[in-house]
Amino acid sequence: MNLQLADRHTARFRFSQAEVDRFAEVTGDRNPLHSDPAFAANTVFKRPIMHGFLGASVFSRLLGMHFPGAGTIYLSQELQFKKPMFVDTDYEAELTVLELRTDRHLATISTRITDVERGELTLTGLAVVMNPAIA
Amino acid sequence: MNLQLADRHTARFRFSQAEVDRFAEVTGDRNPLHSDPAFAANTVFKRPIMHGFLGASVFSRLLGMHFPGAGTIYLSQELQFKKPMFVDTDYEAELTVLELRTDRHLATISTRITDVERGELTLTGLAVVMNPAIA
Repeated sequence: MNLQLADRHTARFRFSQAEVDRFAEVTGDRNPLHSDPAFAANTVFKRPIMHGFLGASVFSRLLGMHFPGAGTIYLSQELQFKKPMFVDTDYEAELTVLELRTDRHLATISTRITDVERGELTLTGLAVVMNPAIA
Repeated sequence: MNLQLADRHTARFRFSQAEVDRFAEVTGDRNPLHSDPAFAANTVFKRPIMHGFLGASVFSRLLGMHFPGAGTIYLSQELQFKKPMFVDTDYEAELTVLELRTDRHLATISTRITDVERGELTLTGLAVVMNPAIA
């Protein structure tokens, strides 16, 4: 799809512990903070938290499949992990077009994730992407 | 492990197309750029490229398992995707401690990935992490 300034796209999502475990397997990131309840109990979080990049992968999924869609190429992504994210919890991702350079097919997009029930921002950042559809 | 200023950690890695496909499955990111050779043939890359976050997940793996290790909590990560990354290609990740705030158990770490054969930087960025071992 083409993008216009201030266009906004939202999507709800949640992950299960089985998905966190599969993410750990494919990336090799077996930080026990994500999968070991006994280890996590001794941290400030008290229970396992999701990999930050699993939460952030939602940005890549939405940018590459919906907004603007297939063929999106990532140029950069900043991520601020504001709050831990947990399995079996409803989150909403929100993408907003902040800047367009149609001559270069570039968009700067605000990327945010909110805990739906708590209304708290968990992950914020900024993506710069290229897609021929940005024109 | 404890970290000292300018400490450096490197690790070689490579991913297969099967791993890219599993990453697409668990994250839901089925951008055809990553898995469809016919689609990718019509892009500037000519062949499928890895998900940027699959490459970047190496930083999370190293920070959470080795440098400084288990229990690392991500506060932020900037990513600049300089060059596409491909399957069946040797890459080296390099982490370097740029700044320490031991009173708050914080480290700012430069994160880079280089294509081993070409000697080209593919992914650069900056991570800020917290770990009780940073003291």
